[in-house]
Amino acid sequence: MTQFAQQIAFLQEIEKLKAVYRQTTVLADNDRSENSAEHSWHIALVAHVLRPYANGEVQIERVIMMLLIHDIVEVDAGDTFAFADDVDMDAQSQQELLAAKRIFGLLPAEQGQPLIELWHEFELAESADAEFAKAMDRILPLMQNMANDGGSWARHTVSKSKVLERNRYLQESAPRLWQYACEQIDIAVANGWLTDN
Amino acid sequence: MTQFAQQIAFLQEIEKLKAVYRQTTVLADNDRSENSAEHSWHIALVAHVLRPYANGEVQIERVIMMLLIHDIVEVDAGDTFAFADDVDMDAQSQQELLAAKRIFGLLPAEQGQPLIELWHEFELAESADAEFAKAMDRILPLMQNMANDGGSWARHTVSKSKVLERNRYLQESAPRLWQYACEQIDIAVANGWLTDN
Ligand SMILES: [Ca+2]
Repeated sequence: MTQFAQQIAFLQEIEKLKAVYRQTTVLADNDRSENSAEHSWHIALVAHVLRPYANGEVQIERVIMMLLIHDIVEVDAGDTFAFADDVDMDAQSQQELLAAKRIFGLLPAEQGQPLIELWHEFELAESADAEFAKAMDRILPLMQNMANDGGSWARHTVSKSKVLERNRYLQESAPRLWQYACEQIDIAVANGWLTDN
Repeated sequence: MTQFAQQIAFLQEIEKLKAVYRQTTVLADNDRSENSAEHSWHIALVAHVLRPYANGEVQIERVIMMLLIHDIVEVDAGDTFAFADDVDMDAQSQQELLAAKRIFGLLPAEQGQPLIELWHEFELAESADAEFAKAMDRILPLMQNMANDGGSWARHTVSKSKVLERNRYLQESAPRLWQYACEQIDIAVANGWLTDN
């Protein structure tokens, strides 16, 4: 297979992310489920726009690339709901790692290997870029649920403490966004979209 | 309105791009219509992967940002089928310009103005970055139609000459991709997916 054929094969394979559905719904489109491809587009622009709130230095181009590829493993591994209690996280991580190797491995190695590493950096969430990328992955569903009468929180009877716990991430990486999240969570409780415990 | 409130309003407004449907279909998802948000995600990665074929220097981060925002005007102006004959292009351009000003104008000016300019640069397609971005917007639907028994070409009885004309763009900006397009177009004609005239 030529390098070119490998590149086309990869680009055709990732089309499948358009068929991976999340718990979030798209209010603007009859409240249908959102897929991970359009989510990945949205979140890249969230990072671009909210970059001024990053605590410390981030390389926004790396953050955006990280976010464009962060969900591609779901082509094989599926989406995991953030507030699911019954997921075996180790098995899930293992499956996602295999998926990353298979899918990015479709590319010529000099293109695929850096993407596997970038995906892994996102997963570890230790670098400043990955922390900010993870923060974006927390704030966007919160914005969407708030615009949608509680959305997936309300549907799954999620508690305030779980959402606070999940967003606590923002506290260090983007304090202004943490403040916003706390305010919104209080509104969600007042509206009955989150349970108060 | 605070800057922060403007940023959130913009990010909630562009959610509507997930409800703008194109002529292309997603074979991996029961051949449903593709929306412009997931298309924008896909094309950003097409640019990342096919960058080695750019003729001359491109700043890939600018190209990717251009592609992430290139269709946002469709929230107001809708998608125009590439091979439609009955479109008043001047009226369409006028409508898209108003849309760009309204939607990017939701942002604080120091963020919105650069995005209006980047969108305009894409539309003009005169800079090297915009030419390469436009080339990506040609090659992706071609790849998708080829993977989908002719897709929107076959459904709309499009002719070889029209597709060649539309892709001729690639000839200068990415010669290797022009060669690929010509090969694929010949296959499409042989398969009866494009008419031969
Ligand atoms: Ca378009």
